[in-house]
Parts: sequence; C-alpha cells; structure tokens
Amino acid sequence: ISNTRQFFSIIVYDEECFQGRHHEFTSECCNVMEFGFESVRSLRVESGAWVGYEHGNYQGHHFVLERGEYPQCDAFGGSNAYHIERMTSFRPISCSNHRECRMTIYERENYLGRKGELSDDYPSLQAMGWCNNEVGSMRVQSGAFVCYQFPGYRGYQYIMECDRHCGEYKYFKEFGSHCQTPQIQSIRRIQQ
Amino acid sequence: ISNTRQFFSIIVYDEECFQGRHHEFTSECCNVMEFGFESVRSLRVESGAWVGYEHGNYQGHHFVLERGEYPQCDAFGGSNAYHIERMTSFRPISCSNHRECRMTIYERENYLGRKGELSDDYPSLQAMGWCNNEVGSMRVQSGAFVCYQFPGYRGYQYIMECDRHCGEYKYFKEFGSHCQTPQIQSIRRIQQ
Repeated sequence: ISNTRQFFSIIVYDEECFQGRHHEFTSECCNVMEFGFESVRSLRVESGAWVGYEHGNYQGHHFVLERGEYPQCDAFGGSNAYHIERMTSFRPISCSNHRECRMTIYERENYLGRKGELSDDYPSLQAMGWCNNEVGSMRVQSGAFVCYQFPGYRGYQYIMECDRHCGEYKYFKEFGSHCQTPQIQSIRRIQQ
Repeated sequence: ISNTRQFFSIIVYDEECFQGRHHEFTSECCNVMEFGFESVRSLRVESGAWVGYEHGNYQGHHFVLERGEYPQCDAFGGSNAYHIERMTSFRPISCSNHRECRMTIYERENYLGRKGELSDDYPSLQAMGWCNNEVGSMRVQSGAFVCYQFPGYRGYQYIMECDRHCGEYKYFKEFGSHCQTPQIQSIRRIQQ
C-alpha cells in the first residue's frame, strides 16, 4: 500500500455551494484566472492534500486543503484572524505516510536554543512542554506539517514540507511569504 | 501519573493583548459580567482544557480553549464562518488521557446506518474512509472530542464529552445549542 501512486483531484467552482462554472484539476494551477475564473468561491477536494494561495503564482497567505467539501470562502480561508476572500493558485502537497512525519523545532532562529522533536499532532505546543508561544526555526525531516499561530489549529497557517526548501526553515520570514511573527502555538501533520 | 489531580487555570482580560482588568479562574464561570467584565478580549490558558461560550450560562456557540495565548477574540472565537465577538461563560473540560479517547460516529440519527470507531485525530473524515460530509449521531465512550463543520478543523465546533449527556448525542440538535446541520468533516481529541 505504501508504494501506490498518489492521485490528486480538486474541483473548483466560481460560485458558492458548488454552483456556477467549475473545473477539475489533477495538478498544480498557478493562476485560476487563466481558466476563466474570476474567483474560487467553493471547492471540493476529491483526493490528496493541497495547499491554496491567496494570490497567483503561489504568493500571499496560504492554507491546507484536505479531502472534503468547502462550500464557501470562509470554509477554506486560512484564519479567523484574517479573512481570505479568494484563492488564486493551488498545488498538491506530497506527504509521506503520516506515521513517518518528523520535524524538529528550535527556540531561536538558525537552529539555536532549546529544541523539540515532533512526530504527532499538537493542538497546544505549550501543553506538550514547549516553553513559549514562538518557534524560531524548524527542520522537516519527513512528510509535511501545518503550523498555526494560535492553539487549537487557529490563526495564520504555515505549511512546512520536507520536499520544499530541503525542509529547512532557518528564519521565521521563511515560514511563509506573509509571515510577520514567529508566533506558533499548534502544529499538526498533513495526512494524505 | 494517570492519577495526579488535574489543575485548571485561565486568565481573562477585558482588553486585547492581555491588557486592562484581568481575573484568574480555576473553575467554571457562568457569567463573566458578574466579575465586572463587559467582555473578554484576550485570554491565556495556563492549564487544562476549557470550553468557552458566546453567551452566559453556557449557551450559544462554543469553542475549545487549550493551553496557550489568545491575544484577541479572533484567536479564540470558534470559526472562520462565524465571527464570535465575545466569550461570556466558560468551564473546564475533564478529559481522560488522550490515548484513551474513544467515540463511535453513525451515519444517521438514533445510532443508525454505517458506523465508524474513532480513537485518533481526523483532519478529514472522508480521507479516513467516511462516506459523506455528515454525521447523524455519535457516542463518546471515553474522553472528549471536538467536531468541526469543515475539513482541517475549521468552521463551527461541537464539543462532545463522555462526562456530559452520558456521552450520548442521538440527534444533531444535541451537538450544540446552535447546531443547524449535521455537517461534520473533521474530528479531533481534546488533550489535557
């Protein structure tokens, strides 16, 4: 089972509740406007995990999209704290088996200070023994994770992948193009 | 370790970013206004897991609060889809060891239809093999869970506890006083 090929499928709609023009994608899309969409207002992930971006060319706020139905922007927009009104680009995430996801978090940038080894889901890093509300740098050894600004998987999201940047996130500015702060309080694995 | 007494502590503030009047609670509060608060605008969970309610007397939308810092309402309000502007009451959740959390979900109300046994975190029920985007009824055998309307722990939250309602949630109207639909697409354990 672990060697089966992964398939990816996402269907996007230009109106809420799966109405209006739609298109199925099985690989990345760097600008949905090129397919005649003004905006994506609802979507259905049929298989695989995806990352959506506010702007074209994989820029701006981003958010994880897993299998299921998202009938309006509020359902997929990344954060309570920041309302995302659109998704312009998106791409599949290659995850390993989520049982093999591994990453190391460091208290300070450049892999300095105290460190923690993660291989599970952590709705509260502090409850798991992490000493503060920030993570200075991180390394993903295997798989993919989503880091969140607030406990309970809330707030800004940052997607960290072994297959991108060689899994190296040395400074918080590398967490995402929109990242303003190293505040991270919950982290979970992305499951295929 | 499993028999140590659980302590609960939450500090609430009437201004954002942990400013203004504050008060520490170590047990439930049925109306924060009785403590001279007009509103809770930021909070810090020092220990334990809590559930916050929009209205007094544990009514209205509710949301889980785990250890960490919530500097503004957007950080603790329950949902992207529904902005909660206030928290008026709150109470501790008694969880068992999260490794022992167990619940059964049923396709239809009154424990009918297909069923699924859960003892882990499920950011996408559909990716885990659940056939649709709804759950008709559920039973919590041990511990406590949060159910979410959308995949990836987004949207309305419903907190299901073994210690409340005898863990029995036979109809979706029992999921929460605000529950309008049996749509549930992600479920996770609440960890102490």
